Parts: sequence; C-alpha cells; structure tokens
Amino acid sequence: MDASEEILRKTLAEKQSAIEAHGNAVRALKAAGAAKPEIDAAIESLNGLKLEKTSIERQLQAAIGGGDSSLNREAFRQAVVNTLERRLFYIPSFKIYRGVAGLYDYGPPGCAVKSNVLAFWRQHFVLEENMLEVDCPCVTPEVVLKASGHVDKFTDLMVKDEKTGTCYRADHLLKDFCNEKLQKDLSISTEKAAELKHILAVLDDLSAEELGAKLKEYGITAPDTKNPLSDPYPFNLMFQTSIGPSGLSPGYMRPETAQGIFVNFKDLYYYNGNKLPFAAAQIGQAFRNEISPRQGLLRVREFTLAEIEHFVDPENKFHPKFSEVANWEFLMFPREEQMSGHSAKKIPLGEAVSRGIVNNETLGYFIGRVYLFLTRLGIDKDRLRFRQHLANEMAHYAADCWDAEIECSYGWIECVGIADRSAYDLRAHSEKSGVPLVAQEKFPEPREVEKLVINPVKKELGLAFKGNQKMVVEALEAMNEKEALEMKAALESKGVSEFNVCTLGKNVTIKKNMVAISKEIKKEHQRVFTPSVIEPSFGIGRIIFCLFEHSFYTRLSKAGDEQLNVFRFPPLVAPIKCTVFPLVQQQHYEEVAKVISQSLTTAGISHKIDITGTSIGKRYARTDELGVPFAITVDSTSSVTIRERDSKDQVRVSVEEAASVVKEVTDGRRTWADVWSTFPHHSSGSVEADE
Amino acid sequence: MDASEEILRKTLAEKQSAIEAHGNAVRALKAAGAAKPEIDAAIESLNGLKLEKTSIERQLQAAIGGGDSSLNREAFRQAVVNTLERRLFYIPSFKIYRGVAGLYDYGPPGCAVKSNVLAFWRQHFVLEENMLEVDCPCVTPEVVLKASGHVDKFTDLMVKDEKTGTCYRADHLLKDFCNEKLQKDLSISTEKAAELKHILAVLDDLSAEELGAKLKEYGITAPDTKNPLSDPYPFNLMFQTSIGPSGLSPGYMRPETAQGIFVNFKDLYYYNGNKLPFAAAQIGQAFRNEISPRQGLLRVREFTLAEIEHFVDPENKFHPKFSEVANWEFLMFPREEQMSGHSAKKIPLGEAVSRGIVNNETLGYFIGRVYLFLTRLGIDKDRLRFRQHLANEMAHYAADCWDAEIECSYGWIECVGIADRSAYDLRAHSEKSGVPLVAQEKFPEPREVEKLVINPVKKELGLAFKGNQKMVVEALEAMNEKEALEMKAALESKGVSEFNVCTLGKNVTIKKNMVAISKEIKKEHQRVFTPSVIEPSFGIGRIIFCLFEHSFYTRLSKAGDEQLNVFRFPPLVAPIKCTVFPLVQQQHYEEVAKVISQSLTTAGISHKIDITGTSIGKRYARTDELGVPFAITVDSTSSVTIRERDSKDQVRVSVEEAASVVKEVTDGRRTWADVWSTFPHHSSGSVEADE
Repeated sequence: MDASEEILRKTLAEKQSAIEAHGNAVRALKAAGAAKPEIDAAIESLNGLKLEKTSIERQLQAAIGGGDSSLNREAFRQAVVNTLERRLFYIPSFKIYRGVAGLYDYGPPGCAVKSNVLAFWRQHFVLEENMLEVDCPCVTPEVVLKASGHVDKFTDLMVKDEKTGTCYRADHLLKDFCNEKLQKDLSISTEKAAELKHILAVLDDLSAEELGAKLKEYGITAPDTKNPLSDPYPFNLMFQTSIGPSGLSPGYMRPETAQGIFVNFKDLYYYNGNKLPFAAAQIGQAFRNEISPRQGLLRVREFTLAEIEHFVDPENKFHPKFSEVANWEFLMFPREEQMSGHSAKKIPLGEAVSRGIVNNETLGYFIGRVYLFLTRLGIDKDRLRFRQHLANEMAHYAADCWDAEIECSYGWIECVGIADRSAYDLRAHSEKSGVPLVAQEKFPEPREVEKLVINPVKKELGLAFKGNQKMVVEALEAMNEKEALEMKAALESKGVSEFNVCTLGKNVTIKKNMVAISKEIKKEHQRVFTPSVIEPSFGIGRIIFCLFEHSFYTRLSKAGDEQLNVFRFPPLVAPIKCTVFPLVQQQHYEEVAKVISQSLTTAGISHKIDITGTSIGKRYARTDELGVPFAITVDSTSSVTIRERDSKDQVRVSVEEAASVVKEVTDGRRTWADVWSTFPHHSSGSVEADE
Repeated sequence: MDASEEILRKTLAEKQSAIEAHGNAVRALKAAGAAKPEIDAAIESLNGLKLEKTSIERQLQAAIGGGDSSLNREAFRQAVVNTLERRLFYIPSFKIYRGVAGLYDYGPPGCAVKSNVLAFWRQHFVLEENMLEVDCPCVTPEVVLKASGHVDKFTDLMVKDEKTGTCYRADHLLKDFCNEKLQKDLSISTEKAAELKHILAVLDDLSAEELGAKLKEYGITAPDTKNPLSDPYPFNLMFQTSIGPSGLSPGYMRPETAQGIFVNFKDLYYYNGNKLPFAAAQIGQAFRNEISPRQGLLRVREFTLAEIEHFVDPENKFHPKFSEVANWEFLMFPREEQMSGHSAKKIPLGEAVSRGIVNNETLGYFIGRVYLFLTRLGIDKDRLRFRQHLANEMAHYAADCWDAEIECSYGWIECVGIADRSAYDLRAHSEKSGVPLVAQEKFPEPREVEKLVINPVKKELGLAFKGNQKMVVEALEAMNEKEALEMKAALESKGVSEFNVCTLGKNVTIKKNMVAISKEIKKEHQRVFTPSVIEPSFGIGRIIFCLFEHSFYTRLSKAGDEQLNVFRFPPLVAPIKCTVFPLVQQQHYEEVAKVISQSLTTAGISHKIDITGTSIGKRYARTDELGVPFAITVDSTSSVTIRERDSKDQVRVSVEEAASVVKEVTDGRRTWADVWSTFPHHSSGSVEADE
C-alpha cells in the first residue's frame, strides 16, 4: 500500500464515522421536534459529508488502479464494456450475422438510459428554455446537402490496397506508423522523432498530396497484406441513396440534424412572432459511413444527435439569463492555454466572457447550461472540460467554438460542440434556394443612412459601347462599395477609369460623363439582416458511453472472494429506479411485493420484481450491476427494508410508505441522507450474509 | 334545419340545463360538508353529463356538416390540413427547395404531440407490461432483409412512361381508370360495371402479367402525357445504400423495426431468464421508397413505427391478464362479417376469443390494450374498428391478423396491425444465420417419447456402393420421418426400396440388410421449440393524423362573424397544457403571470406566456387552434381565472392555487367537472367580449 492510498483509507474511515455521528445528531434534532430550517441545514451538511465520502472513494479507486497508464485504461474499458455487453446495455447489431462494424443496438437497460437522457435533455433545454422542437426526415435530397457543403466537403481521405481493394483511412495509417515508430523503435534519431511528432500534430491539416507523399516516403503498405496502396483520395462519408423510383433524384441519409432546422428558418421565425432571439431544437438519427470504424462505441456509423440552433441578431448576442450562470466555475481550456502548453483551468464564466475568452454571452450561457446538463447526468466534473477550437480547427466563418470534452479510457473525447457559426448556414440556403432567410428589425423611428448610388448614363455608354452597352451597365450597377469609391476617385482625379467587365471578358475605359457615383442620405424604417446561429450539438451516444465509464466501479463482495460491478447512476438516468425482492419464496411476501409494485406503478416509478429464490445478496449484486439505485426487500408483511446502492445503507419503513419514500428520493425531492436519518436503520447482518 | 338537427339542438339545450343544475347540487353538497363518497358520486355523474353533451355536439356537427359525402370529406380534410400547416403542426420537408413528395417535418406543436404520444406508448406498453425495449440502427445489411423476405418481396408493381421515363404504380392507374369509368361514364353496360367492380375488389391479388393485360385491354396510357406505358415490373420499396467504402456491402434503410428484435431473440430470451412469454419493443424510423406517394400525410416515405414482438410458446397462448379486458366491447369486424357484406359490430373480447373469432387470448389481450391506448389518446371509439384480415390478405404463415382501422377523411385507414406471425420470422433467421433461435421448456419429470432411429449398416453399404458409401449414409440419415417410415414399409414388404441420393444425382437400391429403421422409446428432459410471435405494430404518424381529424371542430366566434378552429386534444396529448395571459399589458399583471409560470415549470406543466396586447378573445382563439386545454388569465393580483377550452367554462381561483389546479386536471387526478363545481364561476361577459 503506498502512502497516498494509506492516507485515503484513513480519511475514508474518518468520514464514515463523521457520517454516523452526524446522522445520529439529525435524528436527535428530529426527535426533539426542532424547527424545519434547522433540520434542513443539518441534512444538507450530512449530504455534504456523503458526497465527500464518495469523492474519496473515487480517489482511492484511482490510486488502487495504479494511475493512468494506457494499459490500465484498456483494462478498465474492457471491464466496463464486458459488463455493458453481458447485461445487454449494448448489443453489436445483427450479431447472429456476425455484425456490421460501427453499428450497435441499445439493449433493454441501455435503451432505458438513453430514453432517460433524452427526456432530461428535452426538459432541460426544450421546455425550460422554450425552444421550438422540430422533427425532420433522415432522407435528405442532394440539393440541401449541396448548399450546406456536405456533398463537396464531408469527406475523409482514403487509400485502397491495390490488389485486394480493402480501404483504409490514409491519416490512420500514417498516425499508426508514427506512433509505432516513436514507441517501439529505439534506434531513431532525435531529428526523426521530432519529425514524426510534428506529423502527428499537423495530421488533420495535411492535403491528399501531402499525405500521399508521406505514405510513399515512409514506405507504408496495406497493414493486412503488405500490398502497395493507392494514392489518397476523398471518400464522401454520407450514405447515399436514391429518392423515388426513377433513379434521378439522389439523396443522402443526413449527416447531422441541423440542416432540417435551417431550411425551416422562415416558418419558425414567423411562428415565433417574427422575433429574435429564438432557438429551435431537434433530436434524431444521423449517419456517417465511416471508412473503417475504430474506437468501438464512440465512432459509429449511425448515432443519435440532439441539436439546438439558437438564432440571434449578430449585433446583439447578450443573453437575458446570463447572470444565472456568470458565477459558475469549471474547467475551461482556452486557445491560448493550449498553444502555450498549459492545461485546462477553472475560470468563472462571467470573467471568460468579459475578458473576451468566450466570444459572447449567448455562447457563454449555453456553455453553462451544457455543464449543468452533463454533471446532472452523472458526468464527473473533474473529467469534463470546455476546450476552445484552435484557429486551424475552426471553419473560416465561425466566430468561436468550444467543445465539451469528457475524459474516458480513450482520452479526452468531444461530446458536445458549441459553435457560433455566424450567418453561414442561413446565407448558404438563401443563395441556393432563392428564398431570403432573413430577419427584420423595425426601428422605433426611421433612421437616416448614407447610401452609395450608382447611376450609369445610358446614352453616353450606348455611344461608346454600342451592342455591349447592356453588359457594361449591369457591371457598373453590380460594383460593390469599394470598387465604386475607387472608380469615383479615379474619375475625379484622372477623368477615366479602367474597368473589367467580366461578361465581356475584357477591360473597358469608363469616362467621367458615363456614370454618376454619389452618396445620398436615405431614410430607413427597418434593418434586414441574416441572423447568426449559435449551435450546441450533442452526441448522445458518446455522452452515454462516457457516463457509463464515469459511473462504473467495482467493490469486493462481503465474503471477499469476488469483485462486484456497480454503476452509480443517479436516479434520473438509472434504467430502473427500484427493485422489489421478497426475501424468501413465500406467498405472503410475494403478495406484499405485488402491493408495493402496484403503488410504484401508480407513482410512475419504473421497477422490477425479482421472485427468484436466489440469495438476497446475489440479487442485490445483480441489480447493482444495472445501476438500480434502490431495492425494497420484503422480509415481513408489515414493514420492509429500503437499500441504497452505493452506501449499501438500509432503512426500515412500513409497507404503506415504501413506494412514496422511493418516489421522493428518485424525484430528487428528498435526499437519501434525509431518509437515512428519518427511519430506523436495518442491520444488513443476516440479510446480506452472502453478498 | 332538418328534423334530426332540431332534435339534437333541443337535447343539447336540455343537457346544458341539467349540467348547470347538477353543478349547483354538487356545490351545495360540498358546502354542506357531505361525505367524500357522496360528493365523488355526484361529480362522477356530472362528468357523465358533460361527456354526453360533448357527444351530442359531435352529432350536431356531423348533422350540420351534411353527412358523409366524399366532397364534404375533402372539404373537412382541407380545413384540418390548412390549420395543421398554418400552425406548423406539419411542414412539407425541404419546402424552400420545393419539397420532396412523401416527406414531412413535424413543426413545434406537431413534434410535441408526437413526443407525448410516444411517451404514453412507452408508459402504456413498455412500462406497464414490463417489455424489453431495444433501439437498433436504421441501416441494415442485405443478409438480414434477404432472410426476412424483404429483398425479394417488398415490392410494388410499376410502369414507366415509355417516352419520359416517369414512373407510376400500375395498380393505381388501373384503379383510377375503373373508378372514373364507374363514376362518370353513364353509358357503360351492367356487365361492364360488374367487371370493373370485380377488378377493384381483386386489385391487390393481380399478378404483374394480369395487371399488364388489363392496362393493355383498357388502353390505359400515362396520365400526364398519354404516352404508351411499359409492362408492369416489380420495384423494391426499400431505400438502398452501401455500407462502408468498398461498395461491396449493400444495405438498406429498414422498412420496419421488427427485424432488429428478431435477430436479438437469443440475447433477449437469456436476459429474460430463459423464460417465455416475454415481449420486446422498439420505437424508431422506418423507410419506404414509395413509387408515387399519395394520400398526403398518410402515405409517406419515412415514418415512425412503434412495434412489439411478444414471444410465446405456440402451445400456450393464454394470457394471465386477459380477464382484465374480457368484458370490453367495441367494434369488431370479423372475416365472416366482411364476406357476408355485414358491417362491424360490438362483440365482447372474451366472447370473441371463446368463440374462436380471435385466435387466442394473447392476441385478444393486445387488441384490448390497443383499443385502450387509442381511445385514451382521443380517437373516437365510434370511428375505430378492429378488422380481421381476409384469407387472401394474410401471409401464408400467419395464424390470425387484425388491423385497428380508424375512419378519417380518406376512409378506414389501417393504423395498427396486430398479427400472430407464428414461428416464421425466427425460423427464417435461424436458417439463414445458422444460429438456433429457440426456447426450451424443461419438464418437471422426464417424459417418454417415441423416436425414430435410422441406423445405416456401413459394412453392407460399403460393399454395395464403394466410394459412394459416405453419400448414401448421409442421405439415409437425413431422411425425415415420413420418408423413413415409407422405406421401412417397403423393405419389410418387398425387401428393397428405391432411394434418391441427391448428392449423387441418381436413385440407388437399398436392401433390407443395409439399414435398420426402428422406433424407440426415449426419455426427454426438455422440449425445444421455436416460439410464436404476436406482433402489434403501430404507425405513429397515421394515428396522429387521425387523431388530428377526430379532434378538430369549428365553432362560431361570439360575434358570429367567424368560424374558429379548435382541437379537442386531451391534456395527455396536447402540445402545451396551459397558457398564461395577463389580461392587459400592465407590469403587475405580468409579474403575477411570471410567478404562475414559475410554479407551472416546477410542476412540470408545459405552458406559454402570451403578453401581447391582443384581445383576450383572440388569444383564446389562437390557443384553441393549438388544442391547449387550459388558459389562466391574470385579471387581478390576488386571483385569476382558469378557462377550459371546449366548454369555455371559467372558474376563479387564487394565484397560489392556479398551478396546482391545472396540474391536477392535466394529470387526470381531478376532472374539470370537479374543479368547475368547486370554485366560483367567472362570467365571461367582459373578458371574452370579442371572442
């Protein structure tokens, strides 16, 4: 046992005693009929002690686990994934046909967790923020994804085994080569090592040509056959299909849900009373035909996205509720800290916005709401950070972009992207469809604005250019402000200006008498503009996978001969909230169990009765592994025990009260600490003998 | 005004007086402090009166509407669809790009209704019946849909315009031709009319050749161009795609969710403790690449299905909870009634099963649960029937099949299919995958069973067939019971038997000394069998569309100058449960509205505040059109009014109570009749002046 482990074990024991003592104190207060505020305060601090204990337990597990090496990570992941697959949280899709890479089913408990996560997302974002939820099809015609840029740019670079035709991601092969050299070849020079590290750093920025050159330079061949590889070429990651029977209407399975919202902007803006800001939201499937899926449950070919498109006036990105989150503090990883090699640090959100680290209040507000959402689900706040995109990661049009990254056995994984995409998407669809996707701001009073007016003098232009007159006129009228001002200056100083008419494919000479360029004052009653969009986009499957890892731990069975698996899901996400166990197979116990089950159903608490004759300890262990937070054991016909999963604490309550106590703690209206300090404790001696 | 309308109006007025009187009586009982059971009984009967009133109102609407002609149906549908699209219940997908036939978005209120329907489905089926919910991908490899039969048989017959290439469904063209002739050509003979009617009756059974012959015979050409048509040929309705980059793994977007469950049978059976019966369920998108979508919102290319696969022992299809539904009575339309030209009639479920009209209890139980599900959503029970499939509609393997059909403006529409599919699906996947999808029944005591034993005598066979011995032995061992018994009989009577060895491609002569065939008594400890599956499959979009039609009605504005639209959604499905209106734009009213809004949020009631200066009557009308059941109007700082949508009744409650009263009625824990007989009534005089 090393020093830190010893200290942690000691602290844990002390904390446990403190909890016992504090619990007795609360009980005494209640018995003495103390005032409610006083009792509440005492329960609150009891709760604090319990949370501290949990945190120490986690540290202890980490210490025992032996730190952070990738070997331990692999073993940990394997333990979690084994449990997840054995208990059917996941099932490799079409398993009896030997499966398809990158496709997974959610089995019963996984499906329940997913539907709890989505219900909470809807509550936390759509309902609490009054968002407009929509539901669009997955099948999308080409024109939409042409406008969005996906048809041309949603690609990965691929190489083919020139003999077998097997496909690989070009960057994966180069990455694997560099990593292996660095890790296993001790003979390489310092310069070579630096070169390989540099390649790893700039991997995402390499062009097809650069990637191809590197593969050739290093003599990289197909990993399975050692055959030569083709040059890298882009492979579009969308699943393609054809809409209707003619074969003439190409379509794709959407790669994201966002486009369905953008194309509806006009209707949604109208629905919102032609007012900004407003947000639309969508939950649904998205598809990505990965070249060769890796990273198991994280990199899949079909996944559930939950996306928000918050439309704002680009000149007003303040948020009325920003003050609610301004004081929150959690791990932020701004661009500068990344560039200078520092690590993530805690910055209060208000400060991050006021110092310009986060571009605007609305972006900041969503970062705060995402933090709250993830930690409520059970994501460990110490393994959650918000990382700002570097300049080279961000699309050219984006104003700012932050990823909520969660640390799991694969490292830091992007689970939510929160981007200020400016007006890019609405502009793209406006142009392609010809339908203006804009908002208006009516001025309370008309405003005077200076406007540039270009008046071609058609008579003079006709004389000078004859049949080309029309094209010259159009080109003059199409000048932007800068061009027009330059021409005006040239005409005023030199009397002539060279002017390129692209429809004629040549320059012409414009004289002073051929065009009048002036600035005029005009009255405007409204401002018409393309809104900016701030987009928080949630990869639900990734969040759930990280949640599984953060919730998983093992503990020794009572007999000390077995490691038992536990998921410490909060009731909010637990697939089942409660189990009901008749202690032994006797009819009167089973009848009590049925009565309690009925009350739980009425209260809307998902639960299971287990009447198998298995020992109660085994039954507890079985449901701990599913993350069920509470178990009611029927061991008499008048009262029952309620056991909490993580503390293994048990209290005794009457049959009548059992369901309502479980409801209160699962709804979050009462803490377990309060329950535990209210009802008589039940010693687990006899009951959990074989746990 | 015709007689029936007059009678209805009179009855309605009487019913209204009775309600008023009864309401006063309940109030008096409460004031006198009567016992709770007595008050409850009185409220119950008040509720009954209100339901009767609603029913009379519907009849009156139907009477005014002038019956059932298809013209009225069209007009009614147009009114509903206009409202639905104007209020963004639906949006034609990708509208700014002129849309795609057969694809629709749910806009904000439609999306809320859909998510309420799905949440209730999950509660009613998955939770209450302890089903195993799974969530499988839409992208499905070809092998799975080859096994299920979809690759070969999921087709419609198509014809092409030979010049333009435009595609049509062959049966649609023939159907349209027959209908038009029958309706518009008064010169056709009785024989011709009978022939056309016959074609319409057997349309679904016609082969490609028969359809083609009829199209030719009637000289049917392309409707848009009058060009000649190609012969009919099958077009597969699945959206095809390719999985992975190689182009060598064809895949499809699933046409139903069921296959994802079947391929997981083995794991799910294990998860359920190797016990039958159990049910698995799945909600998800399904796809159908229609040749030419018609029927607007009913026939779409992408839709949400909710499917249940209930696995049972084929020898035991009793259901433990059947007694709960046995006395229910609703419209059933058995095969015999259809064949003999009768209409649907009410049959108690218990009787339907005991008389063998419905094949078994489990099927009957699901019919009952589906009835309850649909009517709770607000489907009119008089326009809901369960129609049994005719022999020619049913797949050859199906034991029985009933469709829940809902009558809407398109006629009777199949919305839920409830089929006993026997062991077909599991057998198909067992065979294709080689993985046995079976269940075991362990016998309490071993059973003695007679088994046929085939013992080839290898020595004699070797002498007779030399190098072919092995193939003859395998063929003998592979005989089924019938073949073996025939051979045994032949050997005993004639001493020899001709035997076809297909691996040799010829017959051989088997003599008596070459094989011993006998029956032996063996002890068996278990029975291994393929479970039957009973499948209720819900078309969620169709149910929602019918629900919209059944919920829609219009009423005159108070001024009598306008028809106002109302959706009478029950709170369960209403997109928003409540609106909060400050009567006028004053700060202290708006503050009260915010306080109430906060309480509603805490209570989990979805709601909207509308602080526009629009008249209160207009605001009521606006939310009636969204089907919002309750409106709280803030007209003082101490008390507010609550208005119920359909009765337009208003009561006055204190600001503190408002949210909890709304919560109780939306949760169904209290009826509006009870609320209405508890609180003082508010006269709508001044407030709704302009409604």
